Amino acid sequence: MRKFFEYNWQVRDEWFAWCQPLTADKLLRERIGGVGSILYTLFHIIDVEYSWIRAIQGKEDLIVNFNEYNSLEQVKRLSDKYRVEINEFLNTDVDRIKSQSIKVPWDQAEYTVDDILHHIIAHEIHHIGQLSIWSRELNLETIPVNFVGRKI
Amino acid sequence: MRKFFEYNWQVRDEWFAWCQPLTADKLLRERIGGVGSILYTLFHIIDVEYSWIRAIQGKEDLIVNFNEYNSLEQVKRLSDKYRVEINEFLNTDVDRIKSQSIKVPWDQAEYTVDDILHHIIAHEIHHIGQLSIWSRELNLETIPVNFVGRKI
Repeated sequence: MRKFFEYNWQVRDEWFAWCQPLTADKLLRERIGGVGSILYTLFHIIDVEYSWIRAIQGKEDLIVNFNEYNSLEQVKRLSDKYRVEINEFLNTDVDRIKSQSIKVPWDQAEYTVDDILHHIIAHEIHHIGQLSIWSRELNLETIPVNFVGRKI
Repeated sequence: MRKFFEYNWQVRDEWFAWCQPLTADKLLRERIGGVGSILYTLFHIIDVEYSWIRAIQGKEDLIVNFNEYNSLEQVKRLSDKYRVEINEFLNTDVDRIKSQSIKVPWDQAEYTVDDILHHIIAHEIHHIGQLSIWSRELNLETIPVNFVGRKI
């Protein structure tokens, strides 16, 4: 699991760097599909990852409002901040709690820790696929997302 | 790993069903980004998955030509056919060979079996994310891709 988290974080940081030269207008413009804009997609990935990890830890959900994080720098800072905590969690013996059932405030059903970790991973990769289409529609190069052959 | 393969296969089959009412023109039309058309994306996912699995098994790469599989039925048949073999492979003790190094004909570097399996999984999820944008651009509902809460 850790490998996928580290892959996602590396790809996410490459997308943050890719965003750097873009105007706020391009980053925030509402696009067709996904959750809307490029920046909101990155914010959403971060928010979803952190919310599920907190739920696994039995911590209450922290609601973050995109209006307070609607610049590239703010979203990147949020990503860095949450990552420290998530990294600490992944350093614990996650395997031991894999089959534990978790109840989250935003869903009726309960899910195992293992399924939640799968969900977080697939969620980010899916949304990054969406960014890759929007980047080409903007006539910009896209970020390579190969898992094998990445420079670490 | 198996969980992710099964998730990808389920989502893929839902996209095949989603494609059913679409005309050949819509399925084959060249789109911006990704590898091109909707149908070629599905073909590409299947081809890449099978090629890497064959490489892990030390089997030679089978070159499949999209010109010979450019209808929905043919691509779906290819997916079903390869899946039987891939499923058999996943039923073997894959954990035992995880750290084995593999040389593939289309790349200079060598990769571990474990990294290749990660690559196959991320590759499909990424391309499915692209299909989700194109579906919305066609004004069509997209396939839900949540890992948790799926109907099996």
